[in-house]
Amino acid sequence: MSIQEILDHIHLEMSRRDNRGQVASYIPELASVDLNRFGLAVAMADGQVYSVGDADVPFSIQSISKVFTLALALGKVGNKLWERVGREPSGNAFNSILQLEHEQGIPRNPFINAGAIVVTDVILASSSPAEALAELVSFIRYAADDSNIYINDAVALSEKQTGHRNFALAHFLRSFDNLDHAPELTLGTYFHQCAIEMSCRQLALAGRFLINASGMPQLIAPGRVRRINALMITCGHYDGSGDFAYRVGLPGKSGVGGGILVTVPGKASIAVWSPGLTPLGNSLLGAEAVQMLAQQAEWSIFG
Amino acid sequence: MSIQEILDHIHLEMSRRDNRGQVASYIPELASVDLNRFGLAVAMADGQVYSVGDADVPFSIQSISKVFTLALALGKVGNKLWERVGREPSGNAFNSILQLEHEQGIPRNPFINAGAIVVTDVILASSSPAEALAELVSFIRYAADDSNIYINDAVALSEKQTGHRNFALAHFLRSFDNLDHAPELTLGTYFHQCAIEMSCRQLALAGRFLINASGMPQLIAPGRVRRINALMITCGHYDGSGDFAYRVGLPGKSGVGGGILVTVPGKASIAVWSPGLTPLGNSLLGAEAVQMLAQQAEWSIFG
Amino acid sequence: MSIQEILDHIHLEMSRRDNRGQVASYIPELASVDLNRFGLAVAMADGQVYSVGDADVPFSIQSISKVFTLALALGKVGNKLWERVGREPSGNAFNSILQLEHEQGIPRNPFINAGAIVVTDVILASSSPAEALAELVSFIRYAADDSNIYINDAVALSEKQTGHRNFALAHFLRSFDNLDHAPELTLGTYFHQCAIEMSCRQLALAGRFLINASGMPQLIAPGRVRRINALMITCGHYDGSGDFAYRVGLPGKSGVGGGILVTVPGKASIAVWSPGLTPLGNSLLGAEAVQMLAQQAEWSIFG
Amino acid sequence: MSIQEILDHIHLEMSRRDNRGQVASYIPELASVDLNRFGLAVAMADGQVYSVGDADVPFSIQSISKVFTLALALGKVGNKLWERVGREPSGNAFNSILQLEHEQGIPRNPFINAGAIVVTDVILASSSPAEALAELVSFIRYAADDSNIYINDAVALSEKQTGHRNFALAHFLRSFDNLDHAPELTLGTYFHQCAIEMSCRQLALAGRFLINASGMPQLIAPGRVRRINALMITCGHYDGSGDFAYRVGLPGKSGVGGGILVTVPGKASIAVWSPGLTPLGNSLLGAEAVQMLAQQAEWSIFG
Repeated sequence: MSIQEILDHIHLEMSRRDNRGQVASYIPELASVDLNRFGLAVAMADGQVYSVGDADVPFSIQSISKVFTLALALGKVGNKLWERVGREPSGNAFNSILQLEHEQGIPRNPFINAGAIVVTDVILASSSPAEALAELVSFIRYAADDSNIYINDAVALSEKQTGHRNFALAHFLRSFDNLDHAPELTLGTYFHQCAIEMSCRQLALAGRFLINASGMPQLIAPGRVRRINALMITCGHYDGSGDFAYRVGLPGKSGVGGGILVTVPGKASIAVWSPGLTPLGNSLLGAEAVQMLAQQAEWSIFG
Repeated sequence: MSIQEILDHIHLEMSRRDNRGQVASYIPELASVDLNRFGLAVAMADGQVYSVGDADVPFSIQSISKVFTLALALGKVGNKLWERVGREPSGNAFNSILQLEHEQGIPRNPFINAGAIVVTDVILASSSPAEALAELVSFIRYAADDSNIYINDAVALSEKQTGHRNFALAHFLRSFDNLDHAPELTLGTYFHQCAIEMSCRQLALAGRFLINASGMPQLIAPGRVRRINALMITCGHYDGSGDFAYRVGLPGKSGVGGGILVTVPGKASIAVWSPGLTPLGNSLLGAEAVQMLAQQAEWSIFG
Repeated sequence: MSIQEILDHIHLEMSRRDNRGQVASYIPELASVDLNRFGLAVAMADGQVYSVGDADVPFSIQSISKVFTLALALGKVGNKLWERVGREPSGNAFNSILQLEHEQGIPRNPFINAGAIVVTDVILASSSPAEALAELVSFIRYAADDSNIYINDAVALSEKQTGHRNFALAHFLRSFDNLDHAPELTLGTYFHQCAIEMSCRQLALAGRFLINASGMPQLIAPGRVRRINALMITCGHYDGSGDFAYRVGLPGKSGVGGGILVTVPGKASIAVWSPGLTPLGNSLLGAEAVQMLAQQAEWSIFG
Repeated sequence: MSIQEILDHIHLEMSRRDNRGQVASYIPELASVDLNRFGLAVAMADGQVYSVGDADVPFSIQSISKVFTLALALGKVGNKLWERVGREPSGNAFNSILQLEHEQGIPRNPFINAGAIVVTDVILASSSPAEALAELVSFIRYAADDSNIYINDAVALSEKQTGHRNFALAHFLRSFDNLDHAPELTLGTYFHQCAIEMSCRQLALAGRFLINASGMPQLIAPGRVRRINALMITCGHYDGSGDFAYRVGLPGKSGVGGGILVTVPGKASIAVWSPGLTPLGNSLLGAEAVQMLAQQAEWSIFG
């Protein structure tokens, strides 16, 4: 089967599913998204894109943004980042505060909320929030080769109004001297980065900077690409990371908007979107769709 | 550089290291091992082996045995195994009992001690301890194509005499009805499986059943191989798994005897041995050696 | 109202209660006890006893035995006991293993299971299990001035057969070198001490050694009595200790057989028995009955 | 010995101690307090006061204020308070956030920081911060029969500037809908209540509302007094409550300013001040002094 045929088959299969999970309900902008939305796009190394369903409908990338800010932060401070955040799976929920207390304010990895807040704080060392967000959006637009990518300010505002747990994390980090800026400032930037909207097509294209394919322009060094992929496979789905690695066999990063960015090193970048979530906060059908795609295309980093 | 040249270079480099970690001290058989031992072997898909140092000296494989018992247990009960053990990184030490209490006696994954004890218990459903151990050793001998592989009974006995923490785990599992046999029986088997001795050469050869190389006889189905590799990369180094994936970029399973088995899917199987451990219980120089090897051979599953 | 009138009133009130909690179900001997049993006895300093209901029916004192073994252990080793066990409420269930791991094998207090196992282990330093149990029963018989008090061997055997959680605790303690004897030996003694059977009358009489009343023979020093009472009020009801202190205002120690021993310093000793338990493992109606008694008799250590 | 002779003896003894603990260092106002300060006052039921040392020097009462706000909150909402806060010792540090996550935002008791913040939030239901603080100070002045008691605004401001941990707790509570007001508002009030300054003499006099002595004007009902005392003995010294009960045998509430308020039900109220703290945040010599006093005056609630 061709990639397009595989995608069509998956699309049909997913359209028949009754159990689609639950949309995130904590802000109106996410709660009102149609649970039946489904998009899937595959960008090959050469820029060719295959897609099905709502692959051109923008959605809130939310925590998928953490992959881009991690790349930027590593570009700015290199391995000094790891003095402030770890590289281990957390064994806890995405917004857990437990390990921070036992581990003296060092978040377990850059993909749980606490770690991502530290990463954003690192970026703000050399830029104002506005500059940092402009740089981030520019980076993503350049990677996607598409200038039509924006932050949804209404989403950012809603996140701020309901972000008590993230404020708790930020103040907690600050109590351990692991936040250099006022919580309001760092979180203001963080909420805006999470409110970036992209379609599956845009996200798949942008994700190619993480696949180390020959002939592509390199946005970051190949060794760094490999290491970000390693973090994605061990930590990219919070406390469901082991399960995703087991079932899909590819690095991925999920967002609470229902999107997942998945890399096929050397070959392709995949973006899927289905807004219904599992209790762990990952897209239910998104993971299933990618599992089918990886199996049928015989894409696995494990041979 | 050829593989052999890379190995020679690593061997020289490692011989110069002052900080070699600490040998495991809880049983005399491990405590008396020479901290300066170092072996490294690479088995290619075609059976060719490259090696340096003490690559022909047998050592106690300890927790590396968990990879083999997992393969056997999946062969016996398939996915029913996952009703009794999870697939997520633990975020805690190899012998931690914490999450068992919060998670109702379901160990987080088959590579922490609690999970490996459940795996051994599963194998005992259809075999006596003697039969199960015979089957395990036969499997390993067949995979390594070497009949000169044995269990060191003195090590097994020492493990039993000092294995209070493992007895605690086993009784705890039993209190949650997640152990079908008496703790003495399951642990008796478990201590013997950990006491298998192999050289790096033997272990690298045996490890080829996990690399899905074309032309090799398949001991287990390719899909299962991929999934075991996924578990190795997310959980194979206890609470150091994220760091190993980040630095080395390959699936691996460590043992407290100082060995690490590493797979290069489709290409090669690597075994390294340096008995000095990090505080997390993984071979200090072993991980460094494999990191150098992966970098210089340009072996990474992440592109 | 006289004490007897208060007891009669409480008896009537308790007989009308529909929600009586759940009997402990893990061993047949406790599971088969009639949920409608209710006994209450008050022994005044001068030896006068008031009672109602099943106050002369023996029941399994279970963890109430920990008060007596604590007194014996303090008599043997004095304050050296506190090198092996703490004096703080645990914030966790009676059989939790969590804090043992974080706190290096030092149980939080002598009334949670882990701590009581250490206390029994201390007593065995100078006695065989048979001698220790004989000494314990003699102490209780002397305190109660009643030789008709025995250990129920069938209960002890059942406890042993289902005591996986306690075996886990004992092995865990041993892994931290905080158990001097084989788990089988210490737990064998522990299960027998828990299997002592007494009636409310006997227990109330025996409990007088903890009330420091003038004119009574002193079994242990007054300062030690006060300190055991302090431990009872802060730790005597596991993770329900704060609530018991708040509602009743008197030191108490509960057992999973449904009994509670309560002291009124300087005045009286109370024993109540209702086999139905709360989810925390304390007698539901037992606590209510004592709360009523304390209120109507105006007995509170808080003025 | 008379009370005054006992106090003189304790004063002499304490003046000779080399190990005086560490003053709280997180705000300049507390860090600059002289470590050698020592005050001790005993107010008898009839209003007679005995004192030694710096008993007339005002100090920051800090968490001792939680006893007064608890009394006010119970007066306003009664037992409905217990829907929002528990009554159990926490088994963790005064500022721990751990149990809040496991226990769905219900703090363990009203004396750990999280619980005290909820208590202050309750008071604000019917009053503005200024009114609530005015009512609190009036209550304390009335209880102490001394109008010369004030809030130190500089201390409150310093607390706010460094109160990241408390902000984390407040936001966390709010994320579980257990905070009705904005964290800034509730914490603004909380920081001011902690910044009340009193001398030992004033505090001992004010504390008499918690001793249920006959002939005294009752500020709150006797049953409520008993229950607050119960909470003080099980939870008043954070994770050192069990030890304080064991050693001293009286209810007490400590503050990070080095003060402790101790009640002798029916008899007396004690205030001690020594600014050096133990690692658990309680006054080191303060507890020792009260232990000596209780022993020599033969004051214990345990007979």
